[in-house]
Amino acid sequence: MSDTLKQLADVLDQRRHADPDSSYVASLHHKGLNKILEKVGEEATEAIIAAKDATNGGADERQALVAETADLWFHSLVMLSHLGIDSQAVLDELAGRFGISGLDEKAARDTQ
Amino acid sequence: MSDTLKQLADVLDQRRHADPDSSYVASLHHKGLNKILEKVGEEATEAIIAAKDATNGGADERQALVAETADLWFHSLVMLSHLGIDSQAVLDELAGRFGISGLDEKAARDTQ
Amino acid sequence: MSDTLKQLADVLDQRRHADPDSSYVASLHHKGLNKILEKVGEEATEAIIAAKDATNGGADERQALVAETADLWFHSLVMLSHLGIDSQAVLDELAGRFGISGLDEKAARDTQ
Amino acid sequence: MSDTLKQLADVLDQRRHADPDSSYVASLHHKGLNKILEKVGEEATEAIIAAKDATNGGADERQALVAETADLWFHSLVMLSHLGIDSQAVLDELAGRFGISGLDEKAARDTQ
Repeated sequence: MSDTLKQLADVLDQRRHADPDSSYVASLHHKGLNKILEKVGEEATEAIIAAKDATNGGADERQALVAETADLWFHSLVMLSHLGIDSQAVLDELAGRFGISGLDEKAARDTQ
Repeated sequence: MSDTLKQLADVLDQRRHADPDSSYVASLHHKGLNKILEKVGEEATEAIIAAKDATNGGADERQALVAETADLWFHSLVMLSHLGIDSQAVLDELAGRFGISGLDEKAARDTQ
Repeated sequence: MSDTLKQLADVLDQRRHADPDSSYVASLHHKGLNKILEKVGEEATEAIIAAKDATNGGADERQALVAETADLWFHSLVMLSHLGIDSQAVLDELAGRFGISGLDEKAARDTQ
Repeated sequence: MSDTLKQLADVLDQRRHADPDSSYVASLHHKGLNKILEKVGEEATEAIIAAKDATNGGADERQALVAETADLWFHSLVMLSHLGIDSQAVLDELAGRFGISGLDEKAARDTQ
């Protein structure tokens, strides 16, 4: 089963040490944590504005919100990667809060 | 392996119409889009501050960043849910950008 | 003529060491820099949302934007005060950028 | 007249209809409200990051916070100007909250 976010985190970790001139991910790491955090704040703002426009908007405005939310999640993954934190810890935190832990689910599957 | 984020989105959609007095998710929807977007901005700020503290911090500061990032992703999922947008569209957008499309992956599995 | 912002900065400095139970300003300083910065981010978000609502709104929406901008400036003044930075330095920076320096202005008054 | 912020607001109103190619203020108005609000969010984020760096920083880090706060106030003034809201209303709101109203102050001076 696919987990896009985890696959993406793997790709981001691989690109961390790529050439900053050819990889946007590598260029963010090269510029450092402050630049990455500025992008997180910037993309959160853009998502908020896009959400306001999507309320009364059509397909274009809704697609713009999808793209801005993707930007926000992407840059927060780069933030975690920069600090050496596994994004799985965030997913585990969310799973734990909502009672959808991977262990329970695996056990459920094993008994099917 | 499960996709926590998609499972979480399902849980959030189910809780949308729960009693606002007993469900935080329902209470957010009841208060409306502006309140949800305020939380997105607030959690982005808290994640940024936590990331600065995690740079020179120990396990507690790193766990705080995990929790704040979970809050940020959670509230952005509620934002999408409130506007009737499937969070899968965000994952597809990310997959498409990074060449990890679910279709390719499904095809790969089918040939195993 | 008075400079409201400078007078306000004076009031904020005075209240810094007041009783945190009776003064909001003192309570912010007591909670520390992170709490103050969270409020700056929160009020920036609320101002952005209020500005979107003011675009097609009436007098109420415009007054809400005025109040949110006041909140944003207020909490950024508390931020400066907490770090021992004179808000006059920000006004001087702005005056310098736009050629409205206080020194020029004083000279102009002296020749009247 | 001593109020830098009011003088700045006058300058900003004058530059609103300048050539977008030669005036940054005019270019912001030309790009529209969303671009102006993105800048407000961006500068709030940069001020927050600069404040964290200023805590343990020296003169350079403190000056960086002054510059980022100036950017934040500047872009929030452009936001008000774009929506045709007089920044004096924000100062009046702050004065009213803190009992430093210009009318009271004028009366006090008249009796000196």
